[in-house]
Amino acid sequence: MNEAREPYLLTPGPLTTSMATKTAMLRDWGSWDEDFNGLTASVCRRLLEAAHATETHVCVPLQGSGTYAVEAALATLLPWDSKTLVLTNGAYGQRMIRILKYLGRDLTALDMGDYFPPSPSQVDAMLADDPAISHVAVVHCETSSGILNPLEAIAEVVHRWDRRLFVDAMSSFGALPIDARALPFDGLASSANKCFEGVPGFSFALLRRDVLKDCADNAHSLSLDLYDQWDYMNRTGQWRFTPPTQVVAAFASALDQHGAEGGVAGRLARYTRNKAVLVEGMRAMGFHTLLDDRWLSPIIVTFHAPGHSNFNFKDFYQSIKRRGFIIYPGKLTQVESFRIGCIGQLFEEQMRGALAAVRAALDEMAIPDGAPRLEDLTKPVF
Amino acid sequence: MNEAREPYLLTPGPLTTSMATKTAMLRDWGSWDEDFNGLTASVCRRLLEAAHATETHVCVPLQGSGTYAVEAALATLLPWDSKTLVLTNGAYGQRMIRILKYLGRDLTALDMGDYFPPSPSQVDAMLADDPAISHVAVVHCETSSGILNPLEAIAEVVHRWDRRLFVDAMSSFGALPIDARALPFDGLASSANKCFEGVPGFSFALLRRDVLKDCADNAHSLSLDLYDQWDYMNRTGQWRFTPPTQVVAAFASALDQHGAEGGVAGRLARYTRNKAVLVEGMRAMGFHTLLDDRWLSPIIVTFHAPGHSNFNFKDFYQSIKRRGFIIYPGKLTQVESFRIGCIGQLFEEQMRGALAAVRAALDEMAIPDGAPRLEDLTKPVF
Repeated sequence: MNEAREPYLLTPGPLTTSMATKTAMLRDWGSWDEDFNGLTASVCRRLLEAAHATETHVCVPLQGSGTYAVEAALATLLPWDSKTLVLTNGAYGQRMIRILKYLGRDLTALDMGDYFPPSPSQVDAMLADDPAISHVAVVHCETSSGILNPLEAIAEVVHRWDRRLFVDAMSSFGALPIDARALPFDGLASSANKCFEGVPGFSFALLRRDVLKDCADNAHSLSLDLYDQWDYMNRTGQWRFTPPTQVVAAFASALDQHGAEGGVAGRLARYTRNKAVLVEGMRAMGFHTLLDDRWLSPIIVTFHAPGHSNFNFKDFYQSIKRRGFIIYPGKLTQVESFRIGCIGQLFEEQMRGALAAVRAALDEMAIPDGAPRLEDLTKPVF
Repeated sequence: MNEAREPYLLTPGPLTTSMATKTAMLRDWGSWDEDFNGLTASVCRRLLEAAHATETHVCVPLQGSGTYAVEAALATLLPWDSKTLVLTNGAYGQRMIRILKYLGRDLTALDMGDYFPPSPSQVDAMLADDPAISHVAVVHCETSSGILNPLEAIAEVVHRWDRRLFVDAMSSFGALPIDARALPFDGLASSANKCFEGVPGFSFALLRRDVLKDCADNAHSLSLDLYDQWDYMNRTGQWRFTPPTQVVAAFASALDQHGAEGGVAGRLARYTRNKAVLVEGMRAMGFHTLLDDRWLSPIIVTFHAPGHSNFNFKDFYQSIKRRGFIIYPGKLTQVESFRIGCIGQLFEEQMRGALAAVRAALDEMAIPDGAPRLEDLTKPVF
């Protein structure tokens, strides 16, 4: 391993990106110029194609992080008299609740705690019970735990009750299949620096065209008004306000590379292999995953911290970082944990390198194999 | 001139940036990692120093374009029962009015049309007249016309009436002196891709610490809540949501170069020289500036379109672009005009190159020297 190289990022993003993606930033673009407008149009077209949504939806890019697209999409889509059922099992579901409170929109929540999936039958019962619920919001892959929520089954229930669906697909779109022909969503938000492997700086939403056209008066914010952004872009080909030109150029290159890898299917195959190598190697060292196999996503995996008294996350992190890998802290309220991501320009070689770094960190901290904290093993049975 | 080079951007931003700034983006950063936190802290510290505001203000960076920082700063600073006097003489003043309407905050406006400066005595009279006005918002350099508004004199009036001042210093901060010790503002917003010559992707606000601490409940939006962003950053060193890591790294490099050029004074000297070369050369070809010399900024200059029947802006633009320079369309409602910027990595060589391109474009369009439209010469007398 090249010692001088910057660390690989085994995180939920920003990610390790390819040098081709980064070198696409070595140019300045006039944001008013037709060359840049063409770049934006091609990015939007390809994102719609990736979701099979060209016929039904529009793609609206937005300056800012992924949370901006979630807030903007909710604000733009939700009428002021709407009521949203938020399905939450982690930080990003909780964030949607917080956003709806800022927006002054009515809401109710199905809170599954840290790592239980929301069950379609519970959603069914809540929709049967409360006809005022007009919208349902769900996180596809909740990176707090790494859980992959049962999106298709939930969408089916929402559709059956004729309610409207919003999906936070931040860390899934680009690697997990999203098919708008089969998945009836009004809005879906994601970001440049997740599974399409761009650099951070903008986010985007796929919005159902027939719904969006009636959403001119919903948004609370000029900057986050996706109706206004779409309308202006439609008329001029330009973003309303200065776009992050280099980040958009990097994303266009990242989309080329996504296509060359075989699109969503190709990327999913690589990430799935990364996850398999990671989980197998970690289990061989005695680590336990928070989730049972069937809920593990190929995006990020949560592991219980070793139960040994020598363990502390900060030293563990620094020891692994010195060996060229950055892992991610846990985000659970009740158990000590850490996370390791599988996405970005990571291949089997990097996953094995990260495993070797974990092994070396344990040795350095004098923690023997197979020392998970016993009480953490009383995991919920799904 | 190297024909293969991308065009120089003679626009109000995004700008032509240095290769050092762009190559600072060839690395991936973990946004949670202390290395990146250090970068953010250094950027904020240096921005406060550039405004002599270290003792009185905090710097809060924000993902998104400059408009985001304007909206976020107004939303965070303005109590719900505030009333803001907006001084407007162009698109960016009008944008603040639009933002305040989204925010549901009371406002009144002093609308000077396209290119008259707001006069301190008018502001004085309006503040005397209406004690309900709690805040005054002004654009420092209004790039719609290129006018430099009399910020110091306005600030003095606002201070004398004990009202609070917000400054949109988007296209001025970094090149025009802003001294918080003498200029009593509560908030000032600017962006990475203006006179500090970073690439676009984030903006920032300097906010008076004593005021901000009481602003926890003002903002309408989670993403744009600068109190929350500041509070979180204060506690953790991190941005609340994924920052545009590469753009921040580029900005840190741009700040190094800003310092090496002699800071604000050095940059102002270069831009002033750029403007002088530009205006002299354009006038020699018979062009007229929209504004009298005393209102011209060293940021961007508006010229009347030639009054010749062969002229149309699209062909003029394309002809100049083919020669390696991108200029900017006009943004005036009443006269045909175009704009040429003086900021970014532009030096006398590029300004003379742009003048040669204008000359060649006129020849190509068979427009003789000195053919401004006569009625456009009836400029207002300031």
